[in-house]
Amino acid sequence: MDIDARRKADPEHWKLASAIRVLAMDAVEAANSGHPGMPMGMADVATVLFRNHLKFDAAAPHWFDRDRFVLSAGHGSMLIYALLHLTGYQQMTIEQIRNFRQSGSITAGHPEYGHVEGVETTTGPLGQGIATAVGMAMAEEAMRAEFGAELCDHRTWVIAGDGCLMEGISQEAIGLAGAQKLGRLVVLWDNNDITIDGRVSLSDKTDQRARFEASGWRVLSCDGHDAADIDRALREAAQDDGRPVLVDCKTIIGFGSPNKADSAKAHGSPLGAEEIAAVRKAFGWDAPAFEIPSDIAATWKAIGSRGNEHRSAWESRVGALSNDSRDEFTRRIDNKPNAQLAASITALKARTSEEKPKVATRKASENTLAVLNPDMPENFGGSADLTGSNNTKTADMGIFSADNRMGRYIHYGIREHGMAAAMNGIWLHGGFRAYGGTFLTFTDYARGAIRLSALMGLPVTYVMTHDSIGLGEDGPTHQPVEHLAICRATPNLLMLRPCDQVETAEAWEIALTQSNRPSVMALSRQGLPTLRSTHHDENLSAKGAYTLREATGGKPQVVLLATGSEVEIAVNARETLEAAGTPTRVVSVPSMELFRAQSQAYREEVLPAGNVRIAIEAAIRQPWDWLLLGERGREEKSAFVGMNGFGASAPAPELYKEFGITAEAVVEQAKSLL
Amino acid sequence: MDIDARRKADPEHWKLASAIRVLAMDAVEAANSGHPGMPMGMADVATVLFRNHLKFDAAAPHWFDRDRFVLSAGHGSMLIYALLHLTGYQQMTIEQIRNFRQSGSITAGHPEYGHVEGVETTTGPLGQGIATAVGMAMAEEAMRAEFGAELCDHRTWVIAGDGCLMEGISQEAIGLAGAQKLGRLVVLWDNNDITIDGRVSLSDKTDQRARFEASGWRVLSCDGHDAADIDRALREAAQDDGRPVLVDCKTIIGFGSPNKADSAKAHGSPLGAEEIAAVRKAFGWDAPAFEIPSDIAATWKAIGSRGNEHRSAWESRVGALSNDSRDEFTRRIDNKPNAQLAASITALKARTSEEKPKVATRKASENTLAVLNPDMPENFGGSADLTGSNNTKTADMGIFSADNRMGRYIHYGIREHGMAAAMNGIWLHGGFRAYGGTFLTFTDYARGAIRLSALMGLPVTYVMTHDSIGLGEDGPTHQPVEHLAICRATPNLLMLRPCDQVETAEAWEIALTQSNRPSVMALSRQGLPTLRSTHHDENLSAKGAYTLREATGGKPQVVLLATGSEVEIAVNARETLEAAGTPTRVVSVPSMELFRAQSQAYREEVLPAGNVRIAIEAAIRQPWDWLLLGERGREEKSAFVGMNGFGASAPAPELYKEFGITAEAVVEQAKSLL
Repeated sequence: MDIDARRKADPEHWKLASAIRVLAMDAVEAANSGHPGMPMGMADVATVLFRNHLKFDAAAPHWFDRDRFVLSAGHGSMLIYALLHLTGYQQMTIEQIRNFRQSGSITAGHPEYGHVEGVETTTGPLGQGIATAVGMAMAEEAMRAEFGAELCDHRTWVIAGDGCLMEGISQEAIGLAGAQKLGRLVVLWDNNDITIDGRVSLSDKTDQRARFEASGWRVLSCDGHDAADIDRALREAAQDDGRPVLVDCKTIIGFGSPNKADSAKAHGSPLGAEEIAAVRKAFGWDAPAFEIPSDIAATWKAIGSRGNEHRSAWESRVGALSNDSRDEFTRRIDNKPNAQLAASITALKARTSEEKPKVATRKASENTLAVLNPDMPENFGGSADLTGSNNTKTADMGIFSADNRMGRYIHYGIREHGMAAAMNGIWLHGGFRAYGGTFLTFTDYARGAIRLSALMGLPVTYVMTHDSIGLGEDGPTHQPVEHLAICRATPNLLMLRPCDQVETAEAWEIALTQSNRPSVMALSRQGLPTLRSTHHDENLSAKGAYTLREATGGKPQVVLLATGSEVEIAVNARETLEAAGTPTRVVSVPSMELFRAQSQAYREEVLPAGNVRIAIEAAIRQPWDWLLLGERGREEKSAFVGMNGFGASAPAPELYKEFGITAEAVVEQAKSLL
Repeated sequence: MDIDARRKADPEHWKLASAIRVLAMDAVEAANSGHPGMPMGMADVATVLFRNHLKFDAAAPHWFDRDRFVLSAGHGSMLIYALLHLTGYQQMTIEQIRNFRQSGSITAGHPEYGHVEGVETTTGPLGQGIATAVGMAMAEEAMRAEFGAELCDHRTWVIAGDGCLMEGISQEAIGLAGAQKLGRLVVLWDNNDITIDGRVSLSDKTDQRARFEASGWRVLSCDGHDAADIDRALREAAQDDGRPVLVDCKTIIGFGSPNKADSAKAHGSPLGAEEIAAVRKAFGWDAPAFEIPSDIAATWKAIGSRGNEHRSAWESRVGALSNDSRDEFTRRIDNKPNAQLAASITALKARTSEEKPKVATRKASENTLAVLNPDMPENFGGSADLTGSNNTKTADMGIFSADNRMGRYIHYGIREHGMAAAMNGIWLHGGFRAYGGTFLTFTDYARGAIRLSALMGLPVTYVMTHDSIGLGEDGPTHQPVEHLAICRATPNLLMLRPCDQVETAEAWEIALTQSNRPSVMALSRQGLPTLRSTHHDENLSAKGAYTLREATGGKPQVVLLATGSEVEIAVNARETLEAAGTPTRVVSVPSMELFRAQSQAYREEVLPAGNVRIAIEAAIRQPWDWLLLGERGREEKSAFVGMNGFGASAPAPELYKEFGITAEAVVEQAKSLL
């Protein structure tokens, strides 16, 4: 490791980087938990980045025109916590560092967006950071094109480890960034050759440099422990030549630890008191734990205010805008809702109730977007190569590409996971509301990033079409069965399954006014009649469930609950039951989460106790037990008409019959329960 | 397209390939649904492969030493159906082709394993085929090493499209195959430059050849419509030089279609009657739909019996083995259970009940494997770079690598999705039972392949540790909350969450005796006491739920249900309640699926109606409504003690307190409900 030589070569840098290393190893030791190796290995690179390159102002963590810094290797959280502390982010006190990984602290095990200022995105699940950064970099290009470099002119820097690069999502990110020519995206690869199980070669022999080049990246390299060499590489990296940049930083994990450096032993557990003492000695670091010598602290603080002037100048430029321009720019970068939205939706609903179209809800979604997108420049759409099937592109939208940064539609390619992460990044960057489409069953492929949307509370919209066996012939690999349950089981995720054009418009209104949770919209492939023709001035879907068809006399003997394409079945079953003298109510349930949030009085009004209750959904039952057996429902008087297992390949109408999801089956169930 | 020139250059080949093309376009037309473009584009490559290279015998689809053929681009299902029909697979009659994508036919929209002989794995979700094939190729290497080339000596051929290569899982597969030097794996890339949204360049500019080379692959290329050139490339590809092989087959999607070839229009919908007539004319194909001229049919049939001699010779070699050797080899290739298993498990349980160890269930899993693996050469373990955390490696296991094909432990690298798909491939190949570990929360990353394990009914075992907030400081990104619900919602998936060493041994016994469904084992990071100390001769976990602690007097006023690490909490709560005079039963629920399969009488015995019922699980409630509100439970007399949202970063004991999952909270709930 040549510690003495390194120390002498650049004493000032050495001290700055040592402060990070010492904080990292001491915090992990105090917590008796955490990852010292990565912060110690990347301390030099991070020091040079923050000292000389990153545009930021520690006094203004939310300043829009800052460079974005993403720690994709999130287990090295002490690296970013140390940097935030040293550069003077107000929240990141030394107490927080002392309380690393403890209850109530902001210094969580992995960096969490919203939990601590200066953390741009939640990382830890490997590869998410690099893929999210691609979204940030695309949003930056788009905002710069729209508002000019005076208002938007920054870079996205990522630190990624071998783990990030082995995860499949990284390839989706690399491919997308290369195709989009994101020249202001720089990935600093912590090339330390160590994974948890041992040397990287145990499981991978990929030439990463060649791999990135194959996707159109520019590849640089540096000695990750030589400040001058790092600085040279970062200076080169900052030149935007239309290719994203990989900097291969050759590093030693746990740098400075005499017995654990360059081995998996430095990765994921405290070094131990003895080893820490040895590191201190090797570093010539006399200060006790959690104390930074004042000269070093002062230098770091000065680094933290380096961007102050840039920020002031930017604020002046924003201030010099016309009131209208400033209001719109501010609305956009603060991700505030669009004032036009409600009126557009209401008008569409009114029109629909007259025309009563029979359309698939995927088409209803397109109809809604066609009304909204021209007035909502913040809508940033896309699809994972299913544009014509997801109906996600509207005529007004140009294609976002290196040649057209004003385009608002992204061809994400066959990359569901990368798309979802990029959508997170677009929202996190600010300026846009991202939506993206694929088939509902491929929420599976995107799960890792969808979970982060929910955990971070990012109101992106997943446009998931072909939402049941109703897609027909493509068969069980493409037919979601458990996916509604999966989305409903995920905390802070809004699952919307509208039944017709009116509810689809309402679903979009709901999704586009969320401020802190993502929406998954489940949309049909097959055509569906307009079932809602009243209350256009009200968003009934926002109640989660409501009476769509009242029982004759208002006192139902049977209550049918259904969502999406199965509401039509419920309405048909009701007709038969009513004709046979059985007062039957149909309750449409576009969103269980929203219904759960209603008052008990409202819920009881919609779902009175003591009747026969039947739920109809072409999916598995698990999320319905709550409404069938609970909320004063009962085992003896309720039933579920839906799926028990995987689907099959055949035309959709045959499948509905084959799996017994028909009005006849519902009527039969009702009669046997009455 | 030079149709006339192609036709004249090799009339015999042309006719054979045309048969595929015509069947594909006619079947899609009849179904009014499907993907003609890919079979038409790859017909030449597939013809050469089946005619000259693939080792197979249509009369014996299950012959163990056949080459494996995987259609990763599963939407091109008519390609494989046509090949199976033409080469004479008994099941694949012309009637089946006529009924493509219809109810009750074996010709599903995407090829489904188990649904039709000759389909080696279910494909359709892109990238799964190539990743599954990596597992097949590893299993082939391992079986060859163990039993010799006389008994195992074959290749794995994959057809993959641009979509497969864009999906992240493909990178995981490519990296793993390269590191493992799988020289008998050949991927035929249908390089047609078209995706659903248009040209590949809309979303990707990756140089695929360079990308594969970067991971240690050998890259060949050919004109995908020139039989001689294809044959040359496949001959080269079949030479095993220790590198997996990519053959870049330059093709034209919808080859032969005058107006739709080379465009997305040929991809996913019928060509239409007019276009089909034009193709027939261009091909010089006079036969009506679904009729193959007899000379062409005869040539194809002969191709189907090409491997007959090889198979006979192989069968003779197997027949010449000693009885013992033959029995074991046959047991292995038929994936039959190990006769030793039950006795080993019972012995371990008996020992445990004496020693009463306090161990994490992940360690209990290792203890179990340590007993089993030396006697179960079929166990093929691994981990996605969390070996020490998942406790998946036992001392007897060597590392599987290019240098040691007798190793039975795979360092999969940081590739959860690739690992899961490879596990599927290992089972599908035959000879091994695969298990693999990661953290439970990263079932998210592997979802796409786990779903296919369930859909195909493959009894692989997912060893998912760190199964709740009990993992502590790593925080919410690493803490599963919804994942038990996700697994339980997935059809045909067995979710096992044992509470101690005894139940963990039982869980392994259950998993390793499954024949048609995968198991997900959720295991704790934290230590847990031995709670079971009776009935060692019986696998009580196999009942799904059972009375672990009886209420005094046998008539419970309170029934506590819990799984895994929360059973200890239930047992502690019971003590307090019993001390206060409340007869309380504790029911351990290692598997809801297994409990659901019990008789109603047994279920009522374990869960009598009319008492207070409380479920305790550090996860969300969704799957519990069934047992709390249903099975004669009631809303007014039941409660759930668990998670309502995401976790947090802190030491585990603090988190349990913070989220109110404690014996005290259970006691309080019980009292308020009594």
